[in-house]
Amino acid sequence: MLHPGSGRRGSPIFGVWLTNGDIDHVAGLLSLREQQDFTIFATRGILDELASNAIFSALAHDVVVRRAIPDNAEIATGYGLNVTSFAVPGKVPLYREGAQVLTDEIGDMTSGLALRHAGRTALYIPGCARMTPEIKARITKADVLLFDGTTFVDDEMLQLGLSNKTAARMGHLAMSGPGGTMAALADVTGPRKIFIHINNTNPALIADSPERRAVEAAGWEIAHDGMEIDL
Amino acid sequence: MLHPGSGRRGSPIFGVWLTNGDIDHVAGLLSLREQQDFTIFATRGILDELASNAIFSALAHDVVVRRAIPDNAEIATGYGLNVTSFAVPGKVPLYREGAQVLTDEIGDMTSGLALRHAGRTALYIPGCARMTPEIKARITKADVLLFDGTTFVDDEMLQLGLSNKTAARMGHLAMSGPGGTMAALADVTGPRKIFIHINNTNPALIADSPERRAVEAAGWEIAHDGMEIDL
Repeated sequence: MLHPGSGRRGSPIFGVWLTNGDIDHVAGLLSLREQQDFTIFATRGILDELASNAIFSALAHDVVVRRAIPDNAEIATGYGLNVTSFAVPGKVPLYREGAQVLTDEIGDMTSGLALRHAGRTALYIPGCARMTPEIKARITKADVLLFDGTTFVDDEMLQLGLSNKTAARMGHLAMSGPGGTMAALADVTGPRKIFIHINNTNPALIADSPERRAVEAAGWEIAHDGMEIDL
Repeated sequence: MLHPGSGRRGSPIFGVWLTNGDIDHVAGLLSLREQQDFTIFATRGILDELASNAIFSALAHDVVVRRAIPDNAEIATGYGLNVTSFAVPGKVPLYREGAQVLTDEIGDMTSGLALRHAGRTALYIPGCARMTPEIKARITKADVLLFDGTTFVDDEMLQLGLSNKTAARMGHLAMSGPGGTMAALADVTGPRKIFIHINNTNPALIADSPERRAVEAAGWEIAHDGMEIDL
């Protein structure tokens, strides 16, 4: 979210929306200036997680506003963009996992965002452990979908000997397979469908791979650095 | 510290030495892979700080070794480089500051490093609140000095209206002035003297500025991205 910067250290950042509390989503906050004013929008659960961690107090409370956003409540930014956060199946951050982990819980630890501008809607869902009828209905009505493309197959990390975790264990739907995202959304042809949040083990990242061709044949795009999307 | 990487996700990083617990020193740990094996070397105080923060548990304890290093004890890496950590005046991390802050305490929260290879020594001291006879004696015997160059004058941030903190309040010696680093080390002409950790408010960063000329006239260099130093 951008707003006009001003002054010697003006910043165009108006707000940061967090969709979960894992390191790849929150560590970037530590690279922002300690005296830079912006608003963090997140669920109560994620804000509590940040509040419980002293290192995030470097985002001074008298400068950086924390705003808890209820599920499914549209927030008007005042910049022509309205943002709605909605719960999706997921899990607590890795660094909060206990002995037992619910990997597809619908609560306040994992969300998607609906970004609405001039009557058009883009959905940003970087992590989603399971497709639900509610999420599918939302996707069907959207114009652009940016969706969790972490792995191509569920046991990708195990096959490569890099981890003992499946995509499901990490709170992600795989792209392929009978239970995967491409199958789940095969009959959803309205929105432009783009995979994001792609792990570097995912062979669909390779331009001429069979997996890339399968993704494209299913009507999906693979996001890339510097990609610009007109809504 | 480099060691030969191996395997699909091999890394050349053998160890990370921390000289304090502030965000600019520890947040980079969160960008390393969770299954990458290396050793974190730091004082007991800094290791306790990391241990008290759940987010750093993503550096899995069965993969990333924590090693507490005593003050002034040389550690042989086995790669031809020996490293000694020594306490320098400083303060607790910003996110641990209470109502009262000791800004030039010599304890286990701020350190310098002596890097010894083939009989030659480089000192790395990115933060130092006060020059002491012990530190000056160490510098006099070194071959290369990399030293705290945060600000040019002590009240630089206040003059620019960017902060109400002096360099001293932030735990740093200014480059210039009667109490500054250039004055304190004016008679130390043996080692190559290089300023590092330079704030973007410091006019000595500007190649043709009067402040740059003053720094160079005093026998100092300004470090730059991509700089390589032969010890």
